[in-house]
Amino acid sequence: MEENLDNKTRDALFEYCLRIGDDLLVLGHRLSEWCGHAPILEEDIALANIALDCIGQAEAYLKLAGEIEGAGRDEDALAYFRDEYEFKNIQLVEQPNGDFAVTIARQFLYDAYAVNFFDDLSKCAYKPLADIASKSLVETKYHLRHSSQWTLRLGDGTEESHDRIQNAVDKLWMFTGELFFMNDLDKFLVEKGYAPDIESIRTKWNKIVKDTFARATLNMPSDETYMATGAREGRHSEQLGHMLSEMQITARSHPGAKW
Amino acid sequence: MEENLDNKTRDALFEYCLRIGDDLLVLGHRLSEWCGHAPILEEDIALANIALDCIGQAEAYLKLAGEIEGAGRDEDALAYFRDEYEFKNIQLVEQPNGDFAVTIARQFLYDAYAVNFFDDLSKCAYKPLADIASKSLVETKYHLRHSSQWTLRLGDGTEESHDRIQNAVDKLWMFTGELFFMNDLDKFLVEKGYAPDIESIRTKWNKIVKDTFARATLNMPSDETYMATGAREGRHSEQLGHMLSEMQITARSHPGAKW
Repeated sequence: MEENLDNKTRDALFEYCLRIGDDLLVLGHRLSEWCGHAPILEEDIALANIALDCIGQAEAYLKLAGEIEGAGRDEDALAYFRDEYEFKNIQLVEQPNGDFAVTIARQFLYDAYAVNFFDDLSKCAYKPLADIASKSLVETKYHLRHSSQWTLRLGDGTEESHDRIQNAVDKLWMFTGELFFMNDLDKFLVEKGYAPDIESIRTKWNKIVKDTFARATLNMPSDETYMATGAREGRHSEQLGHMLSEMQITARSHPGAKW
Repeated sequence: MEENLDNKTRDALFEYCLRIGDDLLVLGHRLSEWCGHAPILEEDIALANIALDCIGQAEAYLKLAGEIEGAGRDEDALAYFRDEYEFKNIQLVEQPNGDFAVTIARQFLYDAYAVNFFDDLSKCAYKPLADIASKSLVETKYHLRHSSQWTLRLGDGTEESHDRIQNAVDKLWMFTGELFFMNDLDKFLVEKGYAPDIESIRTKWNKIVKDTFARATLNMPSDETYMATGAREGRHSEQLGHMLSEMQITARSHPGAKW
């Protein structure tokens, strides 16, 4: 496909698709760990549905990544046969589920970014990617509705629920810097009109988070919080390795199994 | 609701709804254990979708059971706070996932029963139950399509895939007798027009299984196979206890948690 991509563009788009797909794959897998463990059947189903959406979206971005790369790797090869350092997801999505408040806070911080990111990406000039982003946007709006409503309900709920989600936000805040990671790759793709401007997404993210926290009676963590870095370049928290070995064991135990 | 139900009818309908709901809850939970462990992303998503359908259906039957009982138990109380001997599901659905062939065989044997059961139940005279069955029927048709296609693909595939699914069928066959369990409760509900005739469902099930196995080059196990019994009356294989303690731990660790 897209045989007219020059090498530099092809490499950049490949990695860009991996970033998006890996965020969703890792987040979706984390959410799927709740399967059958949520304390309410309805919430069990809601979280599993969001997990499925994320994994389904990841599949589309990784499939496109494989097509762009043109080296014969499909979405399964990319999901199951890359090693930890080859994963380009941010650390926020690989953080463990913790209690329900941690899961909701992690989801809200990601969703508030993702709706704006997918909205802008769907208007970008590289059509195969923009088309997938349009579909992601529809689902992600529902995810944000779910996670922001729960943020309000927990934040403005009982003393215990408030404390739990405040703690979760405080703990996860250091991983929000990576949402707005930019390097030469981004600049190159933005110039070509293939990727959205990340600073404008940051502004919109800030507004959603501030407004929601205000209504949820939650404090915004300090601007001076130390921010984790490096995951977009393959340096992950130890959590990812554990998760990947879980996720990849079936596929790797039966490589190329055709039965 | 339905205040005009006499005690005997109410008790019978309560237990009948539990049977249906428990089959789906246990099967759905088993399937959800595949989350993130299938060797192909697409199949991971397919199994998780079927799991979600089953758990969603279970929720509806258990909700109705709680309303019929009228003792203040909702679907969550029934799912998370009953003990093993109070579960009315058949042993087929509680059998462990095993390899992919076992999961498919278990699903096919259940689906071939469930489409016919829900079809007939949706025409029965107790409307709250018939309405839920109509919705189940739509989803279950898709499940049967999925599980029968995989049965064909594995059975008529490689030598290894054929052997695996034949072994799975042979191993699970002893649990198919309970699909057609009948006691006084069934006879009472059938007489009232509230439950379908199980013998006609058995005939249709037999035909689907025979036809599919013939096309899949699989042998029908012998009519003389020893058949497990007792699960509809609460006597389960040891597998169920392990699964329930997994499934119920979150809800039981935080009883009535409102945060």
